[in-house]
Amino acid sequence: MLAVELGNRRVKVIQAPKPRRRAGYSLLRLRLAGVCNTDVELLRGYYGFSGRPGHEFVADVAESDSPALKGKRVVGEINLACRKCEWCARGLRRHCPNRAVLGIVNHPGAFAEYLTLPDVNLFPVPGNIPDEHAVFVEPLAAACEILDQVAIPKDARVAVLGDGKLGLLIAQVLVVHGAQVLQFGKHEDKLRIARKSGATTEITGTRTPVAEFDFVVEATGSAKGLAAAVRMVKPRGTIVMKSTVHEPVRIDTAPVIVNEVTLVGSRCGRFEPALALLQSGRIHLDELISEEYPLAKAPAGFRAARKRGTLKVLLRG
Amino acid sequence: MLAVELGNRRVKVIQAPKPRRRAGYSLLRLRLAGVCNTDVELLRGYYGFSGRPGHEFVADVAESDSPALKGKRVVGEINLACRKCEWCARGLRRHCPNRAVLGIVNHPGAFAEYLTLPDVNLFPVPGNIPDEHAVFVEPLAAACEILDQVAIPKDARVAVLGDGKLGLLIAQVLVVHGAQVLQFGKHEDKLRIARKSGATTEITGTRTPVAEFDFVVEATGSAKGLAAAVRMVKPRGTIVMKSTVHEPVRIDTAPVIVNEVTLVGSRCGRFEPALALLQSGRIHLDELISEEYPLAKAPAGFRAARKRGTLKVLLRG
Repeated sequence: MLAVELGNRRVKVIQAPKPRRRAGYSLLRLRLAGVCNTDVELLRGYYGFSGRPGHEFVADVAESDSPALKGKRVVGEINLACRKCEWCARGLRRHCPNRAVLGIVNHPGAFAEYLTLPDVNLFPVPGNIPDEHAVFVEPLAAACEILDQVAIPKDARVAVLGDGKLGLLIAQVLVVHGAQVLQFGKHEDKLRIARKSGATTEITGTRTPVAEFDFVVEATGSAKGLAAAVRMVKPRGTIVMKSTVHEPVRIDTAPVIVNEVTLVGSRCGRFEPALALLQSGRIHLDELISEEYPLAKAPAGFRAARKRGTLKVLLRG
Repeated sequence: MLAVELGNRRVKVIQAPKPRRRAGYSLLRLRLAGVCNTDVELLRGYYGFSGRPGHEFVADVAESDSPALKGKRVVGEINLACRKCEWCARGLRRHCPNRAVLGIVNHPGAFAEYLTLPDVNLFPVPGNIPDEHAVFVEPLAAACEILDQVAIPKDARVAVLGDGKLGLLIAQVLVVHGAQVLQFGKHEDKLRIARKSGATTEITGTRTPVAEFDFVVEATGSAKGLAAAVRMVKPRGTIVMKSTVHEPVRIDTAPVIVNEVTLVGSRCGRFEPALALLQSGRIHLDELISEEYPLAKAPAGFRAARKRGTLKVLLRG
């Protein structure tokens, strides 16, 4: 089968053996995959990664022992947990310390004609959700995670910093939740997408809001975003941290303490609310797709994904 | 009257006019005051401070229009709020953006024979609380603030980082709350005090706990404390930030995000729970007092407070 491999900062498409599924796993035939910023970071050598990336996908179940999954179109939770530890027992398999992570840690990813995942990780996709939307379920779940972690009142004013893919998804999730979202970004073309979803927008740097928001979501992808969030949040307010950056972040902690600000790190989310949102039709995704390539042209897809201004690049299985 | 003044990194005792109380304020005659680390920082020139410091005190009401206060022995909330803004309306006068702060911002402090404070800031001290304990109500309230902000279960394991005055008070408050406190510090003589209060202790650096605690209170006073707290906290755990440091703090935010850690900035607290704790007799304070000086010898008191290893220095009015 065709498979994408990263190593030495290069993207290669190779012929690889079809993966064997273990007991309790299904074999999946890829329909469509999404290139995430994390994949671009893996290519750059972060986490010392080499191997097969890809963790955003929609696929058909090719082989399974589960009658509920056979022949279904599915999406899959990316954390492969041990299901024995304290975290798994608490229902927080995403925090299992023994976990593998699809396409990131110790489990070959979705950028291949076939992949495997445990049956418990798989969710059948309702028929009215097209592949081009289903492929967003993983980042959309990461956006929904904010509402699982922080009680944001329905009519709250929320600032979202950053107009990348994740920032745009977060703004939509919060707008659908009922919040008044003010999205800050650097790209007028991306902010235009945000406005269509019901957010108001501002070009970053036009003004410097100080202590204006009870909730600020930091999704700039930049080490400077957190300091901006600290300036913008009200005393006793909450900052949701969504930007994984690969350098130490310098912050002045004094205003965090004096103003008793809460900072909440936020990562992956449950798939259920994300699938429900997709099914509702209230999340607009078509404009978030920049380009699509067949798997065989994955190197071109990665080149496109690395360009500034590109939104989602898809790889067709 | 005698009054202490800071300026040009020097401590002076001067003769100053007795302060005039404004309408709604009481005039207070100092009984006993405490030197806080913040006072030492003001001496070093932080916040560009010059003037009369002092915000930990117990005093007699010398003049007041309030029948409830006349002749009483009182302690006082240090934030002088506008009582008109959104924060004051929400009962969060400690976050009033227009506030003055006793001995820190725009209101002469308690290191003087007389001081003034608004009547609403004053709390009569129950008779069974000696001056030497009442003078701790402000830092004790800051310790109690943690329980106002974070729902710590009664039997939770909590790490407290730092064995300074605030760290020792925090450990006691958490022990009385019912928590299993493991206090980390550098000074065996201070950790001995913590053990007497019911905490278990460890010398910092003996081992490096990783992901061991659901709750970590960072009260080291050092810019390095936060990184240690991030290592020690479990996924989905909470770090309470109590160390105000005067330099940017460098942290790796990636584990905060990946492990979905919550960081809560924590500052001043309500006096009511602190007074109730003092009245209960369950907080042991005598060993936290290192030295006592008369107001006239405040320069010697500040010298003592600046020495490593000193705990609370008191100034007698």
